[in-house]
Amino acid sequence: LRVGHPEVIYCEGKTVEQVKGIVEFMLTKEKNIIATRANKEMYRAVKSICEDANYNELGRIITIKKEKEKYTESYIAIVSAGTSDLPVVEEAYETARAMGNKVIKIVDVGVAGIHRLLAKLDLIRGAKVIIVVAGMEGALASVLGGLVDKPIIAVPTSVGYGANFGGLSSLLTMLNSCASGVSVVNIDNGFGAAYSASIINKL
Amino acid sequence: LRVGHPEVIYCEGKTVEQVKGIVEFMLTKEKNIIATRANKEMYRAVKSICEDANYNELGRIITIKKEKEKYTESYIAIVSAGTSDLPVVEEAYETARAMGNKVIKIVDVGVAGIHRLLAKLDLIRGAKVIIVVAGMEGALASVLGGLVDKPIIAVPTSVGYGANFGGLSSLLTMLNSCASGVSVVNIDNGFGAAYSASIINKL
Amino acid sequence: LRVGHPEVIYCEGKTVEQVKGIVEFMLTKEKNIIATRANKEMYRAVKSICEDANYNELGRIITIKKEKEKYTESYIAIVSAGTSDLPVVEEAYETARAMGNKVIKIVDVGVAGIHRLLAKLDLIRGAKVIIVVAGMEGALASVLGGLVDKPIIAVPTSVGYGANFGGLSSLLTMLNSCASGVSVVNIDNGFGAAYSASIINKL
Amino acid sequence: LRVGHPEVIYCEGKTVEQVKGIVEFMLTKEKNIIATRANKEMYRAVKSICEDANYNELGRIITIKKEKEKYTESYIAIVSAGTSDLPVVEEAYETARAMGNKVIKIVDVGVAGIHRLLAKLDLIRGAKVIIVVAGMEGALASVLGGLVDKPIIAVPTSVGYGANFGGLSSLLTMLNSCASGVSVVNIDNGFGAAYSASIINKL
Amino acid sequence: LRVGHPEVIYCEGKTVEQVKGIVEFMLTKEKNIIATRANKEMYRAVKSICEDANYNELGRIITIKKEKEKYTESYIAIVSAGTSDLPVVEEAYETARAMGNKVIKIVDVGVAGIHRLLAKLDLIRGAKVIIVVAGMEGALASVLGGLVDKPIIAVPTSVGYGANFGGLSSLLTMLNSCASGVSVVNIDNGFGAAYSASIINKL
Amino acid sequence: LRVGHPEVIYCEGKTVEQVKGIVEFMLTKEKNIIATRANKEMYRAVKSICEDANYNELGRIITIKKEKEKYTESYIAIVSAGTSDLPVVEEAYETARAMGNKVIKIVDVGVAGIHRLLAKLDLIRGAKVIIVVAGMEGALASVLGGLVDKPIIAVPTSVGYGANFGGLSSLLTMLNSCASGVSVVNIDNGFGAAYSASIINKL
Amino acid sequence: LRVGHPEVIYCEGKTVEQVKGIVEFMLTKEKNIIATRANKEMYRAVKSICEDANYNELGRIITIKKEKEKYTESYIAIVSAGTSDLPVVEEAYETARAMGNKVIKIVDVGVAGIHRLLAKLDLIRGAKVIIVVAGMEGALASVLGGLVDKPIIAVPTSVGYGANFGGLSSLLTMLNSCASGVSVVNIDNGFGAAYSASIINKL
Amino acid sequence: LRVGHPEVIYCEGKTVEQVKGIVEFMLTKEKNIIATRANKEMYRAVKSICEDANYNELGRIITIKKEKEKYTESYIAIVSAGTSDLPVVEEAYETARAMGNKVIKIVDVGVAGIHRLLAKLDLIRGAKVIIVVAGMEGALASVLGGLVDKPIIAVPTSVGYGANFGGLSSLLTMLNSCASGVSVVNIDNGFGAAYSASIINKL
Ligand SMILES: Nc1ncnc2c1ncn2[C@@H]1O[C@H](COP(=O)(O)O)[C@@H](O)[C@H]1O
Ligand SMILES: Nc1ncnc2c1ncn2[C@@H]1O[C@H](COP(=O)(O)O)[C@@H](O)[C@H]1O
Ligand SMILES: Nc1ncnc2c1ncn2[C@@H]1O[C@H](COP(=O)(O)O)[C@@H](O)[C@H]1O
Ligand SMILES: Nc1ncnc2c1ncn2[C@@H]1O[C@H](COP(=O)(O)O)[C@@H](O)[C@H]1O
Ligand SMILES: [Mg+2]
Ligand SMILES: [Mg+2]
Ligand SMILES: [Mg+2]
Ligand SMILES: [Mg+2]
Ligand SMILES: [Mg+2]
Ligand SMILES: [Mg+2]
Ligand SMILES: [Mg+2]
Ligand SMILES: [Mg+2]
Repeated sequence: LRVGHPEVIYCEGKTVEQVKGIVEFMLTKEKNIIATRANKEMYRAVKSICEDANYNELGRIITIKKEKEKYTESYIAIVSAGTSDLPVVEEAYETARAMGNKVIKIVDVGVAGIHRLLAKLDLIRGAKVIIVVAGMEGALASVLGGLVDKPIIAVPTSVGYGANFGGLSSLLTMLNSCASGVSVVNIDNGFGAAYSASIINKL
Repeated sequence: LRVGHPEVIYCEGKTVEQVKGIVEFMLTKEKNIIATRANKEMYRAVKSICEDANYNELGRIITIKKEKEKYTESYIAIVSAGTSDLPVVEEAYETARAMGNKVIKIVDVGVAGIHRLLAKLDLIRGAKVIIVVAGMEGALASVLGGLVDKPIIAVPTSVGYGANFGGLSSLLTMLNSCASGVSVVNIDNGFGAAYSASIINKL
Repeated sequence: LRVGHPEVIYCEGKTVEQVKGIVEFMLTKEKNIIATRANKEMYRAVKSICEDANYNELGRIITIKKEKEKYTESYIAIVSAGTSDLPVVEEAYETARAMGNKVIKIVDVGVAGIHRLLAKLDLIRGAKVIIVVAGMEGALASVLGGLVDKPIIAVPTSVGYGANFGGLSSLLTMLNSCASGVSVVNIDNGFGAAYSASIINKL
Repeated sequence: LRVGHPEVIYCEGKTVEQVKGIVEFMLTKEKNIIATRANKEMYRAVKSICEDANYNELGRIITIKKEKEKYTESYIAIVSAGTSDLPVVEEAYETARAMGNKVIKIVDVGVAGIHRLLAKLDLIRGAKVIIVVAGMEGALASVLGGLVDKPIIAVPTSVGYGANFGGLSSLLTMLNSCASGVSVVNIDNGFGAAYSASIINKL
Repeated sequence: LRVGHPEVIYCEGKTVEQVKGIVEFMLTKEKNIIATRANKEMYRAVKSICEDANYNELGRIITIKKEKEKYTESYIAIVSAGTSDLPVVEEAYETARAMGNKVIKIVDVGVAGIHRLLAKLDLIRGAKVIIVVAGMEGALASVLGGLVDKPIIAVPTSVGYGANFGGLSSLLTMLNSCASGVSVVNIDNGFGAAYSASIINKL
Repeated sequence: LRVGHPEVIYCEGKTVEQVKGIVEFMLTKEKNIIATRANKEMYRAVKSICEDANYNELGRIITIKKEKEKYTESYIAIVSAGTSDLPVVEEAYETARAMGNKVIKIVDVGVAGIHRLLAKLDLIRGAKVIIVVAGMEGALASVLGGLVDKPIIAVPTSVGYGANFGGLSSLLTMLNSCASGVSVVNIDNGFGAAYSASIINKL
Repeated sequence: LRVGHPEVIYCEGKTVEQVKGIVEFMLTKEKNIIATRANKEMYRAVKSICEDANYNELGRIITIKKEKEKYTESYIAIVSAGTSDLPVVEEAYETARAMGNKVIKIVDVGVAGIHRLLAKLDLIRGAKVIIVVAGMEGALASVLGGLVDKPIIAVPTSVGYGANFGGLSSLLTMLNSCASGVSVVNIDNGFGAAYSASIINKL
Repeated sequence: LRVGHPEVIYCEGKTVEQVKGIVEFMLTKEKNIIATRANKEMYRAVKSICEDANYNELGRIITIKKEKEKYTESYIAIVSAGTSDLPVVEEAYETARAMGNKVIKIVDVGVAGIHRLLAKLDLIRGAKVIIVVAGMEGALASVLGGLVDKPIIAVPTSVGYGANFGGLSSLLTMLNSCASGVSVVNIDNGFGAAYSASIINKL
């Protein structure tokens, strides 16, 4: 059905053998492959059958580039709050790249130091679509929503403790954003945010 | 800051006098005006100072058209599950219109009768961006996510009872969508969905 | 009290010795035996006292066939969404078999690719009772509920992350199904679903 | 698609006019009609266009009998805990009757007085399928599950207060039943329980 | 025990007669009196026995000034996000005043328009202690926390709908603030915030 | 303050050294000692300084008998549902014994097999106070509440999975008991139940 | 089955006619009658068929004294935190009286003014069993648990707002009491607390 | 922006290398450094580049003193309930010290033994600001709030089990405090409490 989209495996709860088997089958098609939530062992198994496999360890994601598709000219900006949010940033980044997008990362611009965010505003506003990644209280999405006029896909992360309840706090924050133009994906779902952003970036 | 976007009032928890006062002030600018969650009395008060005010009773939304902006050629599709979801559909519809979008409504195509949905697929696929409105279990977003390749903004509604917990059930369903390309706004937030969809439709 | 039903042990929170002891006692009766949530070590201990013990590793379930009961002619269809749901499918399958049912498995037909589901519809409709197993957003139960006219026992699984909250998301989805004819068992309770389905299949 | 099933309207959140309009359209088909969660005013409106309409005030349900279908010989037993659960019992009763089932009601047999339940056991065991309706702590489903060998559809009700949390307490009780053969529908969903029970009773 | 603090009544769940009676008794002491969550009828009853009673209708709070205490020179800043948060602002304001504090209100500076907030920063920084009042996603506390070096008492409000869950969203946001120096009181508890702020302001 | 009550340590979250140190200090008083939630290593450390220390491994509880107090003539009955509830039973048992009570255990009488419970009724009714221990859906407390006229202290256990939510299900069941005479302690709190029961048994 | 206990009706969700009918039937037995959660209209209906009926308006409870039973010599102490908790106090009081107990009320001794509580300690310690009624944060039960050596039945009330979540806050507080000897009943369940206390008081 | 405040790292979810790198960079500034939630390995890595680094193992916090700032004369009192709360006490203590405060610790004064608390009252009242640390039911904050007239920063801890839900119980208790003057930080957030207290202590 879909043209131009990669084949995707969600590795959580699968065995190394299962992941390897699925990739093997996918290699017969002429499409890019992404395997999210993959551990190192899975990567080694995939590498053994496909030299071109790459592994982003922080993002826990395997990518195999088969399509020669050119990258977009418009870009997706991935904006994140703290360094602990980087795994989600990387998952989003690799996904967006595997789908053929130009991507710019602007990290460590959480709202506790608003001036660092304001300093990057032109770069962010230049994007066609923006992914915001934030844990703890997740206020970055609201603040950015008030500053830019581009579609924002917000990803709450599970970074935090106590009354954060595994990301619930930032999820609720983002859903209740007082600024408009923000829509939300599941906690830690960097992949899903990039997928939505890619469809929008290619419109 | 923003050009081309309407002035917006959220009327819940405001008095009739407050709403009237805010509209009065907004009328001095050359922009469209939307007042969401407005009751009839608020409408009458607004009408008394502005002949052009319109009221969508089902959607509980007042709109005042000031801009002569042309409508977009690409369209937003608003797809909904049951008749009880119509108030949210109408809020989204009026918001999208006030922002200058061509909009098509496809209602009553819930997943309990999948063939009614499949029959409308071409019309839905023709849209540039899709708003999905569904309560109860909210499965419509996932199903549609698998069938189309356009960005989907999903709006869970509070329609239902018991273990629906005021829309929580459909909210979680949509956040956990097994199909990609779906991002989510707050429960019953037709306004927010239309706002995001409009930004995307105008890209 | 019950005739024709197997003896059942729930192994979670029991020691290997306790499981072995209970099985030893049960072997004195002429009934089939099921031990759910059993690990490999438990299986080895049981095997050491009963040659006929079988172990389904994915489903984590030990079965011992003692009754010569014939299988039913009507069948139970077990329909599941993704490969990560397979452990629950296998628990249901082994339980249904140990209770003397003909069973057909239709896996990997999640709603993100509705056409795969539609392709299997005749096989599913041929069943006397249907078990639906799905995690993430669990929409499969609603969709199938609208397509078939047989009793559906829905099993939400804990497959997913973030706002899935350990299966809560699919549990709520299934309880709020907009299609009728769907009743629900506990999260990951493949055993319970098969038990209910077996009683119905033998009516 | 469905043969032998009534047309159903869920009146909650619909206007009197909408309900009347939908019934008017349904009357053109030769099927029974059920309108659940209907208030008296809705009944009067329906009555004005259809002499045959009946209203069960406790169950808040309108039924219109058009089919001449004979009633089943096997029966559905509806077993309930307290008098406050009666509205749900009545919704289930009317639904099951409109679908052509013989139905027997056994009310006020909650577990606080287990002997009243035991006294009715033969009548309950004689049913082909059992609906259990209980609020507060909902223990009736587990107790009955251990006493009978028929499929049980359990309906938690919102009867109770405080830590009952609107029926959550009995819902969880029923989902965690230590007795097997119990599956569960939404809180207060007498309609859904009867629908499932009817499909099973006609197998 | 306490010197310099007013007598306080929490009127919710009390009858008009009870409130009047308690005030009557309190009037015998030489202290200021506050009655929070008071309706108009309660005010009239209090006014009938004490000419000096004042009523802030928006804040639903009655105050009676008996002490001749001078106001503090340092001030408390009450900063709020939207107009719907004003009732909580007023409850905090009246409480702080009744406790002898100089107070400055800075309203309608929510994070969706960050520049309005930045414009008021000097005034806010001049305070000895800051009360932040915000509903919806409550991000204002975090943003302000990063901009000022004064103790912040954050009050989440129940303003919002859907996934706001009656103020839970802003409560969690404020508890998880990524900026330091923020402590939190109960949802809508303007009184408690002012009480804490007053103790701090008088240190 | 208290006479006749043992010294009690809650070992969870303490180091072996801390537990040993506290016991050492307690040994200087002439009272019985209980250390709950103690692991084997803690027991060995305690044993090394006190020959008389005993360890109930299942109940994870260390007891040291110093008082020569005679046991009560009236007894506490501890009634439990399944074998997985035994750790809590043992914690309650050891606590009650260390407080000088005669105790009788009646285990494995869950409501799924009500006749086993009815068979033990005389023994249970003979107690002065009853502790009920049950996990999964916790219905045993309600059923017993209707059958006996003695005070019941109910202990929900965390036994179960999925919608059990770590014992929440049985906790809510017990709090909502439709039978009277039941009060409840924290999930898995065998110690607390025995403590309350002991005070009552000695009245 | 039970001797010496009153007949009890829970009026919530029953019609005036139903309540009257049940009382009429109960009057044929020689037992006291309690009707909890009764409104004034129900009282008038009951009064019309039974001159001896009494109504405690604050506690919303009807009592009819038929038994000539003498009151106990030992007493139950009902200790409460604030004036808003009085309805629950009254429900408990009337229930305990109707069951033949001597009862002493000690109200308005919440922990915010610990000295008022300490002043009443002898009176409280003189009781055979203690009922503690408290809303908001419910700390009174823990504090009292550390001061007395009698069984405590704690009743959380729904008094409070915001993060009180309808009594959840005090319920959890009481279940987690760091002092021993405290067991808990449902939120606002004055009746249940008195029932348990009465059984204990009569041991 | 901030003068006189330490540089702070939150180590959770960072690698040893990342922590070391950040500290290395921070050492170039003339400020104190705090690294919270740090494990031993992180400490060794930091020690290897900075001889002056200290590690509080219980509090899991690294501190590096660079500023010669004098300590305050007024003091912060840290009051805690049980020994299991000590890690949070230590995190708060080290943070307050690194920010230049005189600090006094009063531990093990939980409400189950109120007299131990009353014995320390003068010391506590002498503080300029008070941090209260308590788990389980967290009642200490309310009790102290009624006894002192200084600002209280309450820290709920995750100490407890079952219905404690990871600290939720004490969090809600503290937010609902019936005594005034109490504001709350996140569960286990000793750092945040000390930060707020330090700002107040230096006013
Ligand atoms: N129905 C709605 N749901 C969510 N946000 C809304 C809604 N209507 C308006 N808003 C937002 O609320 C803001 C106006 O709030 P206010 O100033 O309180 O009227 C607008 O700028 C919108 O971003
Ligand atoms: N996986 C399972 N989920 C729910 N209930 C189960 C499961 N396996 C066994 N049971 C039930 O647990 C009972 C056995 O429990 P036990 O006596 O503790 O081994 C059986 O009678 C079954 O009804
Ligand atoms: N009380 C009820 N609870 C749950 N579902 C219902 C109820 N009554 C009707 N329904 C379902 O709702 C559908 C009708 O919805 P609607 O078209 O909105 O009137 C029917 O086909 C039934 O499946
Ligand atoms: N709006 C409020 N929110 C929280 N606590 C309050 C509020 N108003 C008053 N209080 C507290 O409630 C106490 C009075 O309660 P009461 O004796 O029931 O009137 C006062 O001492 C205050 O501490
Ligand atoms: Mg924006
Ligand atoms: Mg799609
Ligand atoms: Mg169906
Ligand atoms: Mg059964
Ligand atoms: Mg700050
Ligand atoms: Mg009883
Ligand atoms: Mg005590
Ligand atoms: Mg105080």
